[in-house]
Amino acid sequence: MRGRAIVAVVAMLASGGLGAGLPPGQARVQAQGAGQAQAQGQPQGQGQPQGQTQGSGDGVQSVASAKELMELLVIPASNAVFDAGAEPPMSDEAWAAVRRQAVILAESANLLMVGSRVPDQGDWMRMSRAQLDAALEVIRAVDARNGDALSAAGDAVYATCDSCHTKYMDKTR
Amino acid sequence: MRGRAIVAVVAMLASGGLGAGLPPGQARVQAQGAGQAQAQGQPQGQGQPQGQTQGSGDGVQSVASAKELMELLVIPASNAVFDAGAEPPMSDEAWAAVRRQAVILAESANLLMVGSRVPDQGDWMRMSRAQLDAALEVIRAVDARNGDALSAAGDAVYATCDSCHTKYMDKTR
Repeated sequence: MRGRAIVAVVAMLASGGLGAGLPPGQARVQAQGAGQAQAQGQPQGQGQPQGQTQGSGDGVQSVASAKELMELLVIPASNAVFDAGAEPPMSDEAWAAVRRQAVILAESANLLMVGSRVPDQGDWMRMSRAQLDAALEVIRAVDARNGDALSAAGDAVYATCDSCHTKYMDKTR
Repeated sequence: MRGRAIVAVVAMLASGGLGAGLPPGQARVQAQGAGQAQAQGQPQGQGQPQGQTQGSGDGVQSVASAKELMELLVIPASNAVFDAGAEPPMSDEAWAAVRRQAVILAESANLLMVGSRVPDQGDWMRMSRAQLDAALEVIRAVDARNGDALSAAGDAVYATCDSCHTKYMDKTR
């Protein structure tokens, strides 16, 4: 099994294809409806990319509860963002690391919006979407290498955590 | 900002509510349609849980490409599963760590199935769902503390990686 795993990962990295190792900081934001060649720093594009369809969500199955998603993804990612908001990254690698965590924060918001863990289609969905939007603000600040904007974006992330916890904490698992 | 972040996390942990720190290994699988009190080791339940609605996916926006999801979530999680398949965990903490990675692997399959990164509604969706099912097999093996089953589940995960890469690698970002 281990031999196979190594073969799989090496093949992936060697091919430059799906899952190949981009150097840190070169991951691109692919926004809903945004084209493949979209530039960094423009995470919110328009129009449906050629050859892409919008996922129907068929086949989605919640495996983690919302609480587990917090522990596994949201809390580590948001803490990395908060830390960077307090003390701006000092190297390209450090900026890229924050960007990766912001992308995870955005995608964990997508997970909060799908499957059976969704408790309602109103505030829960709006608040989860607010998490995604705040994460996009972090990504824009990172791409602009703007520490002040990063700090403000971190505050925006915090506000989305806080408002959702006020309504749902202790009520949702 | 840093002060706020610490306050937020401490409040979360102290409250025992959403995002509270479950001891490793105590995270529960919440399957689609499975009730809140579902026992460990039964990740695939039936029926809609009370007070839960199925997420419509409205508001979902792809931020990472499929390739970025591989780098951020799928590859680290699957490598942890492969490693544990080769050498079974030796402590409760180590089993719990594998379980967390298997949950991330399952949830990253959900991400592959939503948003504009979905290239088609056929094989892509089936293969992504296969990743989720293989991850559930890992979770069952972990919950049974069964090293042989874990190794077999790791092989199942590998097979899903391999079949999807054969079709999509170099064609999808």
